[in-house]
Formats: sequence, C-alpha cells, structure tokens
Amino acid sequence: MRPPPYIALNVRPRGRARRIGAADIVCAVVDEAQAGRLPPGSRLPPVRALQLQLGVAKNTVQAAYDELAARGLVQSRPREGVFVAGPTADAPAPKLAFRPVAPTFRSPAISDRSAAAPDTIELSTVHIDPKLLPRRQLDDCLRAVIAGPRFRWSYDPQGYGPLREVIAERMTARGMPAQPDDIVTTAGSQQAIDAVVRALECRHIAHEDPVYAYARGLFATYDARMTPLQLDPFAAIDLERWERDVALHRPHLFYAITSYQNPTGYSYSTYELQRLLELSERWNLPLAEDDWGSDMLSGVEYRPTLRALGGRHVVYINSFTKKLLPALRLGYVAAAPHLIPGLVAAKRVCTLGNASLLEAALCEFLQRGYYDTHLRHIQAELDRRYQRCLELLRERLADGVRFSTPGGGPTLWVDLPREVSMVELRTVMAERGVMIDNCDPHFSGRPHLNGFRIGYAYLDSARLERGIDVLAECLRRWLR
Amino acid sequence: MRPPPYIALNVRPRGRARRIGAADIVCAVVDEAQAGRLPPGSRLPPVRALQLQLGVAKNTVQAAYDELAARGLVQSRPREGVFVAGPTADAPAPKLAFRPVAPTFRSPAISDRSAAAPDTIELSTVHIDPKLLPRRQLDDCLRAVIAGPRFRWSYDPQGYGPLREVIAERMTARGMPAQPDDIVTTAGSQQAIDAVVRALECRHIAHEDPVYAYARGLFATYDARMTPLQLDPFAAIDLERWERDVALHRPHLFYAITSYQNPTGYSYSTYELQRLLELSERWNLPLAEDDWGSDMLSGVEYRPTLRALGGRHVVYINSFTKKLLPALRLGYVAAAPHLIPGLVAAKRVCTLGNASLLEAALCEFLQRGYYDTHLRHIQAELDRRYQRCLELLRERLADGVRFSTPGGGPTLWVDLPREVSMVELRTVMAERGVMIDNCDPHFSGRPHLNGFRIGYAYLDSARLERGIDVLAECLRRWLR
Repeated sequence: MRPPPYIALNVRPRGRARRIGAADIVCAVVDEAQAGRLPPGSRLPPVRALQLQLGVAKNTVQAAYDELAARGLVQSRPREGVFVAGPTADAPAPKLAFRPVAPTFRSPAISDRSAAAPDTIELSTVHIDPKLLPRRQLDDCLRAVIAGPRFRWSYDPQGYGPLREVIAERMTARGMPAQPDDIVTTAGSQQAIDAVVRALECRHIAHEDPVYAYARGLFATYDARMTPLQLDPFAAIDLERWERDVALHRPHLFYAITSYQNPTGYSYSTYELQRLLELSERWNLPLAEDDWGSDMLSGVEYRPTLRALGGRHVVYINSFTKKLLPALRLGYVAAAPHLIPGLVAAKRVCTLGNASLLEAALCEFLQRGYYDTHLRHIQAELDRRYQRCLELLRERLADGVRFSTPGGGPTLWVDLPREVSMVELRTVMAERGVMIDNCDPHFSGRPHLNGFRIGYAYLDSARLERGIDVLAECLRRWLR
Repeated sequence: MRPPPYIALNVRPRGRARRIGAADIVCAVVDEAQAGRLPPGSRLPPVRALQLQLGVAKNTVQAAYDELAARGLVQSRPREGVFVAGPTADAPAPKLAFRPVAPTFRSPAISDRSAAAPDTIELSTVHIDPKLLPRRQLDDCLRAVIAGPRFRWSYDPQGYGPLREVIAERMTARGMPAQPDDIVTTAGSQQAIDAVVRALECRHIAHEDPVYAYARGLFATYDARMTPLQLDPFAAIDLERWERDVALHRPHLFYAITSYQNPTGYSYSTYELQRLLELSERWNLPLAEDDWGSDMLSGVEYRPTLRALGGRHVVYINSFTKKLLPALRLGYVAAAPHLIPGLVAAKRVCTLGNASLLEAALCEFLQRGYYDTHLRHIQAELDRRYQRCLELLRERLADGVRFSTPGGGPTLWVDLPREVSMVELRTVMAERGVMIDNCDPHFSGRPHLNGFRIGYAYLDSARLERGIDVLAECLRRWLR
C-alpha cells in the first residue's frame, strides 16, 4: 500500500543563521502542531525529502525526528514513515475535503467536427489528399536531421535561422523581396494570424464575409471588434461598398485571403488588389494577407499578391502545412522590420517557439529542392481534379445550381437556390455517406450565400464522382 | 529576364450560361480596358493560367486572344506573353506605386535576451544542462515513429490519443486521478496557460508576485486585469494578506506555481496548499496550478500539489520540455470535463494542433519507460548540483546575503542587501563573463526583493563555482 502523501513543511533558520540545524526542524514541527496545522496521524516528510529540501545532513533530520519522538510528539512506523502522535495517532489521518471551484469558460464558437466513419466521403474538406503528400522524402529529411548537427536542444524564438534564410530567398524569387530577419516562423498560419492580432495596438479587424471560421473564432477570443466586408464569389468585389464600410467603421487591420479564399475559393483580380492597396493608403488601413494559395496554381507563375504589388508594409502570412503535411504545423509571417519585435514577443507568450527538429527538417526539405518538385506534382494533380470536378458539376447538376471556377487550387463554391434547405441537404447527404460542411460559422450574420465548398484536392476521381452524384440525387427533392 | 507579373482577371459567363466561351473572355478584356483597368503594356494572363482558371479548353482562350489581337487590342510577343496594345504598347508597363500602411504593434513587454558569447556563464537560466538530456533515447523513439504507423498525416486537435492515455495513467499513479479525455496536449506549458486564459469568461487573474515573466506578458496581451499576491521565498506565505487582496479585488482565476516557483524557487507547504483550496471555495476563486516542478525532487515521492489535494476542479498544467528537451515544445493541461471543449477550442484558434510526430515520439518515450529512468537520473544529478551550490554559497558569500533552500529542483533565489544595485551588479558581472537575469519583469511593481535566481541545474560544478566566485568578488564592492 502506498503511504499517505506527506505534509510538506517549510523550515527556516531562526535569527540570522544561514544553516538550518536540528533545533530549527524541531521548532518548526512544534509550532505547526501548536497552530493546529498538523492533525494527529499526519505524515511528516520522509527524512530524505527534508534532508534534500533543507540541504542538510541526513543525521540532522534524523536527530530532529528523534528529539520529536522523545518528546512524544511523533511516532515512527517502520516502512511507513514518521507520523504526528496524539489521541488518534493510530487512526488514519483525517480526510480533508476541499471543494475548489472550476473557472467559467466561454462556450467554444467552433463546433468540433465529429470523426467521420472510414468510408464517408468528406466533400468539403480543404485538405489535400494525403496520398499526394511526400512522406518518403520528408521522412528522409527528418532522419537526416536527427542524425546530424541541425537538431539542437533548444530553439530560436524567431525561428530556425537557416529556414528563415530559405524562406526569404523563396519570397524574393517570387517578386516579394524579404530578408531572413523579416520572417517569424509559426505553428502553421493559424499562429501567424494569432501573433498579428495579439500584437495589434487596437483590435478592430476587417475581414471578408464569409471567411475562414478559425480566423473569426480567433478574433472573437480577443473580444476584437470585427467589420465584415461582403464577398460574393460569383461577382466582382464591390469595392465602393467596401470603401464605405471601411470609412464608416475605420478598422485597424484588414485580414484578406487573396487567392482561393477560404471558404469561397474566390481569387482577387489584379485590379482588386491594386484598389485595395490604394484603400489601405487612403484610409490608413493596414493589410495582412493570408496567402495559403497563390502557389497552388500550376505553371511557372504564381498568382499576384498584395505583398508583391504593395511591398513589405503588407503583413504576409503563408504556411507549409496544407501543401506539405498538416501534421508538421509550420508556417510563417513576414513583415516590416519595425513590426518583428512585436511579432516575436506575441509568438513567445503563445508557445515560446517552434520544435527545432521540424524547422530543421523543413529547411532540409526546401534546400534539397524537394518542395519545388512536390509543388509541381500537386499542382498538376490538383489541375486534373479541378477539371474533373467541373466536368462532373456541369454534367450532373440541375440548372439553377451555380459553382465558382477558381482555376485550380483546392476548393470551389457550390451555391444553391434559396428553396434548398442547407440543414436538410446536409442531413440527407450524410444518410447516404457524404458529408458537406455547415458554412454558417464562416458568415458574420445571416449568410448571403446558400451553399458550401467542394474540396476536390482531397478526393480521388471515384469518390468525387460518388459525392457529386449523391449531391445531384439529393437536390432532386427541390430541383427538377 | 522574367516577364512582368500578369494581370489577374476574373471572367464570368454572361447571362445564365454555366460554361465560359471565348466571347466572355473577349468581353471581359474589352470591359476592363474601357474601364481603364488595363493600361497599355499590361500583360494578360498566360493562356495556360486562364485556361485552368476558367476550366475551358486551351483553344477557347487562344481563340479569344486571337480575336482581341485581330481587333488590335492586344499584341502577342513570342516567349513574353500577350500584352495590351496602345500608344505605348512597346514601352514597359507603367510602374504603379502603392504605399500601404503598416499596422501599429505594441512594444513587447518582454526583452529578448541577446545571445550570450559561447564561454559566458549563464548563472540564471531555468534550463537543465543539455548534457543531462536523453538525446540518444529520444532519437531512437523519433526514428521508430517515423518508420512506424503512429506518424500520421494529420493530428488530433485535443492531442494524440495514446499520449493522453499515458499522461492520464501517470497522473492517476501520482494521486491525481484523470481520464484521457480530461487532458489537452499543448505546445509546452506556455500554450497551456494561453489556452486557459483565452477560454476564461472574465480575464482577471491573480498571480504570485514575482512570477514567471512570460505568464505576466501573456496576461498583458489579453489586456487582462491582474492582482499580484506577494511572495517572499524567505517567509511563509502571508495568507491573511492574500485573502484580503482576493476579497478586495475578486479575481477570476489564481495562477499558481506551487513547486519551485519561477523565479523564487519557493515551494508551498501542505498547509499553504490546503488554505489556498479553502480560499478557492470561500471566495469562488478558481485555481490553475502550473506544476513544472513537483517531479524534480528525487526519491519515490513527489511534492504535494493542489491538484492532488483538491481534485479535478483544479486546472493542472505540466510540461515535458524543460525536463526532457526544450526543443520538443510539448506540455498539457488537465481539467474538469466541462472545461475541455473550451480548452480545445482555445488551442485550435491558437495553433490548430500539435505536430503529431512529436506527440507520438513522446508517447513512445513514456511507454518504453525512458522518461522514468531519465527523471531518476536528472533528479540525482540535480540533487548533487543543488548541494554543491549550497556549499559554495555558504563558503563564498558574505554575511547579509540570503539564499533560499528549495530542496532540489532547478533554481534558488539569492537576495542581496538593498545597498547592492542590481543594475550595477549585472554590469560588473557581465564584464567578467557571468550573466545574471534582470528580474524586474517578474515583479508587478517596485520589487520587494533585491536579487536573482541561480540555475544550478544548467551549470556543471566548475562553471557554477566560477559563477559564484565572480558573484562573491563583485559583491565586495558593496559588502565586506
């Protein structure tokens, strides 16, 4: 049987002495007992625990316990310990009942997706098919880093230096000149957004509506004020309306997903990027660009970005996790030099830093050229899947169902006539083994769209076809 | 030479058509040009980019570009692209200058420690000597996980299930019964504290004064109200004063580091833990216990904790990073079941989840029994270093210099008479190659202590001796 937990005691030297003696221990126990803090039957610290705690010889503690035993204050029981004597010394120590209270937490704004059954077709996920991810090459890099000198016991709070160098080189090659010191690595793009918001002097954030639900959820945990700017993937951005909203509410930051916007799949045109940069200047509205997507389009060129057109005052966020491996959790934020100390401090109070093994392995992966090869591979495959998805939608869906043409990337938006109930559609599709997302958490108020996204990047051709067939059949309830 | 970036265009089908034709592309370009959005010399999207974007055949785009060329609106230049024609069509595209503004960030409350020269003795660090950390065994576990089925492409937002099982078993074996579902893994204890604060309904936090500086910095980024509760490592906790402060300010959470408090090294006695639990009940003050230290004491038993005495309503935070490897960044929080959804949501908006490779490797490390062996190893070594540190302090330091006796663990507090200027002491010691921390950021106001911590866990005997010798010599300026 395990002995009962011991009573931790703090013993102090009396007077100005610097070394504790046996008499100090005796006094401490007597004082505690007289103050009623040592109920009969309480177990005193083991000799070794007290010896270590006080930095004294074992004999000092033993002498004190002997003295206490001689005074009849404690009893030593072999293999059990030293116990406070008293009328009930042989009875077990009195059971103390404490009822501390638990804190009150906010109900999470974000519902947890319940784990899907293995053969369920998840039609709305933004992930890329795990079969397309370069696990073998990544494993090689991890093994190389474990065996080599790059994996260190500690970490650089700003991010592993050589990794920041490679990232800066890649940005520069893409027309977004950056220095390693302009980069802060993060745990995916999520922590990058978090660091930006946490560091903000004034938490009033404009964002597209609808928008990535975890961004809205993040802003809400800071009690941030939010100004939604309406986005319709089937129309151009209503820049005049955006400007009126910005002029009226004067947000302190605009968080924009400029390529393959989550969840609509919309990509800003160059004209829209330019007008947004002018709006930034005119209304003193800083821009944070979440660029998870501009390198998902095949071919030699990337989509234009705010950062490329507007320079380093645009706070730029990107991530490797979606395109390389979600389980890696590595992204980064690039910003003007005077913003870096605030970003590093925000990252530190959040997680202190990233796991250096993973940062070094990613660096190795980039330096070996694996990432560029991999990007070309997934770009080509995503193109195929996108074209197949368009074919299926055009063939199978009734008139009146619209879908966006994002031009590659991972997702597109399907929008349904208002008579289709999204709640009912989700239910009847789920009964047939096809899950689509509830997109309500993406919207700021009543949704101005009536649809959901299709994540063709995640599904092979057969599952995509099955998913769209089920969608088409379920829609017959409303549409002919 | 790289071609100039192309102008991204969004093209929509006219009317109710669902498939884009060449005429739609022609109209879009004409409309854009007439609206002044395509200055002469602008580069149109490459045929392949537009083809993919719109999901049409290459011939459709080519036909549109041919039509535009025939109308004299665009010019095709071999190996360069398709450009908008016009009076200056042969001149380079006009350079557009945008001056977006950068956001305003808070100045970080936390100063970055500048990198120490290689032979500097860092006398104040809380880290454990990297030479004591089990790199070889950890590498074995990482390699095993990379080769096996445990390393998956994604992650469990609450934390890798088998790891939560092992953690719950360990807590239960230590007298703190817990279920795997009560555990949320985090990026070190820092993210655990962050998740607790982020989820709080009311951000008013009591904490020890002085306290771990990154906890204070974290609370500040949420604009949290703070109630400091004064701690003196040379005296018992003034529980009456704490109760008065709690009654007056009514904080919503008390964040407590109950063993080897950072930075003082103080450990709560059982009496103090019990009174704190009663105070929780009496004043409706929830408790969050940061227990980085209770398993750093050698011997079979751990120090008593609030969680062990008070049950699962005490929110319990612990971490593997300090004791195992800082670069791993893995910790956890255990809480009552009704608090878990809020904690998981708070973790998700922060980082989405942990890197599953590291969680699986840690699980392997625990299951193989490596961690217990390692704990025994560092406990024994920390004991030795602690005893050595006490010997040196008793031998070398002048009267009037006090130091606490935490009884093992990683650090103790040295306190100096008021006539010693900490600023000057830091300067003269740094000149002699010994760095001690500036502890001001640990305090809420004017420090009531005048000292710093010694991290004997980090330093081997020779470096510790040298550090304390330099301290003793530098102190002679003030003390005889």
